[in-house]
Amino acid sequence: MAGDGVKLLGMWVSPFVHRIELALKLKGIEYEYIEEDLVNKSARLLMYNPIHKKVPVLLHGDKPLTESLIILEYIDETWKENYPLLPEDPYERAMARFWAKYTDEKPWLTIIGAFAKTTKEQMKTLKEAQESLKPLEEVLKGKRFFGGETIGYLDIVIGWIAFLCPAYEELLGVTYVDPNSMPLLHAWCQEFTNVPLVKEGLPPREKLLPYLKVIREKLMSSSSTFP
Amino acid sequence: MAGDGVKLLGMWVSPFVHRIELALKLKGIEYEYIEEDLVNKSARLLMYNPIHKKVPVLLHGDKPLTESLIILEYIDETWKENYPLLPEDPYERAMARFWAKYTDEKPWLTIIGAFAKTTKEQMKTLKEAQESLKPLEEVLKGKRFFGGETIGYLDIVIGWIAFLCPAYEELLGVTYVDPNSMPLLHAWCQEFTNVPLVKEGLPPREKLLPYLKVIREKLMSSSSTFP
Repeated sequence: MAGDGVKLLGMWVSPFVHRIELALKLKGIEYEYIEEDLVNKSARLLMYNPIHKKVPVLLHGDKPLTESLIILEYIDETWKENYPLLPEDPYERAMARFWAKYTDEKPWLTIIGAFAKTTKEQMKTLKEAQESLKPLEEVLKGKRFFGGETIGYLDIVIGWIAFLCPAYEELLGVTYVDPNSMPLLHAWCQEFTNVPLVKEGLPPREKLLPYLKVIREKLMSSSSTFP
Repeated sequence: MAGDGVKLLGMWVSPFVHRIELALKLKGIEYEYIEEDLVNKSARLLMYNPIHKKVPVLLHGDKPLTESLIILEYIDETWKENYPLLPEDPYERAMARFWAKYTDEKPWLTIIGAFAKTTKEQMKTLKEAQESLKPLEEVLKGKRFFGGETIGYLDIVIGWIAFLCPAYEELLGVTYVDPNSMPLLHAWCQEFTNVPLVKEGLPPREKLLPYLKVIREKLMSSSSTFP
């Protein structure tokens, strides 16, 4: 399907960009992907996202959209007929939005916040990170995916737990998604990353791990934050 | 219009609760309002919002909804026909959501963050707070309200700038919405609070100011944050 001039400004490792790519693919929308250098931000990025200066930016014709959750809603509303992302029922939609916001706040901030900390400091927040993931176990009860039988909006949003968390776990020597206390979420991570459209878009592990290692070392020797 | 058992757990001073009340009133939905004591949280509040333990909570029948922006979307989707809150066009919807999120982050955190600080510390963040409001001036260009000729989703969300900011300004002796550099936003504050449905729901100034004064003093002598 023609995408009416859809372009995506992204950065290969960003789970927020990954959300948009996956949504566009599920909807069957063709788009041009433009990799941005976040160290030397392009005039294009600054022009289209002057407030946050971040990726993803979706360009639909000449209209720029930013903030991944807002872009997902836009994509779902603009290409309504192909593969609905959010549930139809208003209450289920509200629940999907609630858990999306929750996950972008509590687990994301706890896990990402520990990324460039010493092992001792990480251990302090490990329990908090694990606890923050536990409510998702309840949400998954009786379902294969958060979206039901197929992946939907919430799977797309929570996707980073399935592909970024394992890389963090390996790098830091910790376990966030514990298979014993979170069997459903653990199984979902496997199921989600095995969906062909998801799998083909994941950052390659052999590229992701060394990249994160370098970033972590840089951050630990400075006071910057990631991402 | 019958609200199918709509209840709102709130707290009279909360701008987040005010959003929901205003949306329900604009839609013509009858509801029962239940004032919560946030110092001694009720079992009801903890049961319906176990994650955040905050107001507002909207109960529609036995279904609880939390997070004011998510509740607003739910109200708009459930009672679609009466007084649409969000614009119809997907891009305009995305823009309204973008500025709602922006205002809940940057200006809210900057202004609220300075509430219980000393005058000297407040002065440091005053410029930052004013700057954070300036983009809204652009959004208002050529419009009476953020929603156009009548108030909509974004007016409801940004409402706190019109009724909480002036109270802060009076209490702290600062000016956030400067009429010289932000004439449109300043005029909007007057226009918005003069809309009859808005006006009738505002916390009374003679109750708001002494309340905020006491809260501020309590916070300044402790390390808690507000709200």
